[in-house]
Amino acid sequence: MNATSLLTDAPNFEAILAAHKRISPHIHRTPVLTSTSLDEIAGARLFFKCENLQKTGSFKIRGATNAIFSLTDQEARQGVVAPSSGNHAAAMALAARWRGIPAFIVMPSNSSAAKVKAVEFYGGKITYCEPHMASREATCAEVMRNTGAHLVHPYDDARVIAGQGTAALELLEEVSDLDVLVTPASGGGLLSGSAIAAKNMRPGIRAIGGEPSNADDAYRSLKAGKIEPAAKSETMADGLRATLSPLTFSILKSLVDEISLVTEEEIVAAMLLLWERTKLVVEPSGAVAAAPALNRKIRAEGKKIGIILSGGNLDLHKLPF
Amino acid sequence: MNATSLLTDAPNFEAILAAHKRISPHIHRTPVLTSTSLDEIAGARLFFKCENLQKTGSFKIRGATNAIFSLTDQEARQGVVAPSSGNHAAAMALAARWRGIPAFIVMPSNSSAAKVKAVEFYGGKITYCEPHMASREATCAEVMRNTGAHLVHPYDDARVIAGQGTAALELLEEVSDLDVLVTPASGGGLLSGSAIAAKNMRPGIRAIGGEPSNADDAYRSLKAGKIEPAAKSETMADGLRATLSPLTFSILKSLVDEISLVTEEEIVAAMLLLWERTKLVVEPSGAVAAAPALNRKIRAEGKKIGIILSGGNLDLHKLPF
Repeated sequence: MNATSLLTDAPNFEAILAAHKRISPHIHRTPVLTSTSLDEIAGARLFFKCENLQKTGSFKIRGATNAIFSLTDQEARQGVVAPSSGNHAAAMALAARWRGIPAFIVMPSNSSAAKVKAVEFYGGKITYCEPHMASREATCAEVMRNTGAHLVHPYDDARVIAGQGTAALELLEEVSDLDVLVTPASGGGLLSGSAIAAKNMRPGIRAIGGEPSNADDAYRSLKAGKIEPAAKSETMADGLRATLSPLTFSILKSLVDEISLVTEEEIVAAMLLLWERTKLVVEPSGAVAAAPALNRKIRAEGKKIGIILSGGNLDLHKLPF
Repeated sequence: MNATSLLTDAPNFEAILAAHKRISPHIHRTPVLTSTSLDEIAGARLFFKCENLQKTGSFKIRGATNAIFSLTDQEARQGVVAPSSGNHAAAMALAARWRGIPAFIVMPSNSSAAKVKAVEFYGGKITYCEPHMASREATCAEVMRNTGAHLVHPYDDARVIAGQGTAALELLEEVSDLDVLVTPASGGGLLSGSAIAAKNMRPGIRAIGGEPSNADDAYRSLKAGKIEPAAKSETMADGLRATLSPLTFSILKSLVDEISLVTEEEIVAAMLLLWERTKLVVEPSGAVAAAPALNRKIRAEGKKIGIILSGGNLDLHKLPF
């Protein structure tokens, strides 16, 4: 199944409800935390959905579990393939273990030792590729040919998007009168699923994506009305280097109100504030969703803002502060 | 009211239940988190009560709030005095603000800027003393004479102990079949309150205090059957430098099963594991309660161990790893 064919399968709110039922026995219902001192800084009331406390340390386990447990026994038998060097890789390895099938992870040869270790810890079988898109796709195709395994893309997949939307579903179940919801933008899986859940549960809510200025392709794509290529510059938010897919672009175009850009300095400052005040280990990509509110970059004075802290995986020996 | 007169007021389980009712409108009911990978390391099932996510970043707000809201209007009118340079100071300042009375905090002149800032942030009025016990007591007495304020000792106070016991109460409400409960030992306030709650709710439970080998006075005191002076050596767990009081010593003697000593290396390793696997910012003193289980120093194979992560306040620019 290639990317564009999934457009016809765009996920809806019912798919998110079904995903939630499917994955709830496996995942954590993560807490929603608040901080009076961060509220003062933001001039608004912030509700943090703590996906850094989720199994495997990020929301990615939601989409991976939904995709893997949606497979028929026949489809699942040969295992699954995931191209990812990050949180999706670890999530796929663990969800596949729960289902009792192999997970073939295609990772760039320059992946960090910590990421390789995490995938191996959860039992994933790694095939290395060259660190560029062409090699990744070719290697994925080869692994699929050799194993007969089923591809689960990190975000260009309706089942994954429906799974990622369950974090916003839980957040709005708990805080039903949110005015704004912010998630990282990145490839758009979490943002798409979150926007679908939020706009169905609370029609007037504003759905906002946080994005590093140094990786502003979602911002440019929504401005231009077509998918724009990735920026060349580097961001410390290494989970957010992906570009939109046709599926996520189409959902974002119709449901997302704003992409809010944040500088590298704002990401570090947000991260430090989160660690200091909420006592949570949040990765730079997670801080990207909090940075717009903490820097008062979105019009939301006195409002209730839901923020999905997407993950907490990073090298504690190489902190940016 | 001096320390020893409180012996006659030793808190009991009813006092903890009353404290819980009194403080619940003000404090967070903190989550209980688990981690499969830490369970594997410990060879047991661990349940972390996250008091690092508590208001002011530590459990100390429980005892402070209980003490301050136990005062009659007459007693409260002139405010409260607290000798503390750490988490108790910030907690007293905030709880006094809630009650609408002044908090006079007596801090050593060499307190860190971060600690002074935290107390000021919550509105505490600071009087500095010399960094030794005699000056601290003299300064406290002077502040009391000048202001008529009411003393709330960090742990040698039945109301404070009853408040600290509410964290264990909540933990056992959530996980009723714990086999072991571990908290930091220190001055004994948290450990005393926790042991009273736990032994009343689950009579067979083992109550254990974690203590740095470099600050092993609770260990030595329980061995000797009398309060022993503090060790001279330094520990990074700076919240745990206090020595037992007559009141906490008497409770520990009758209710605590074991003091488990951990080295500085074991504290850092436990802290790093907690940050990495649970994504929680836990201060060294908090890691002291987790270190015995993570190093398999307590006989509890396959058992359920409750661990109170006491706080998350530390200087993020001076991490020990």
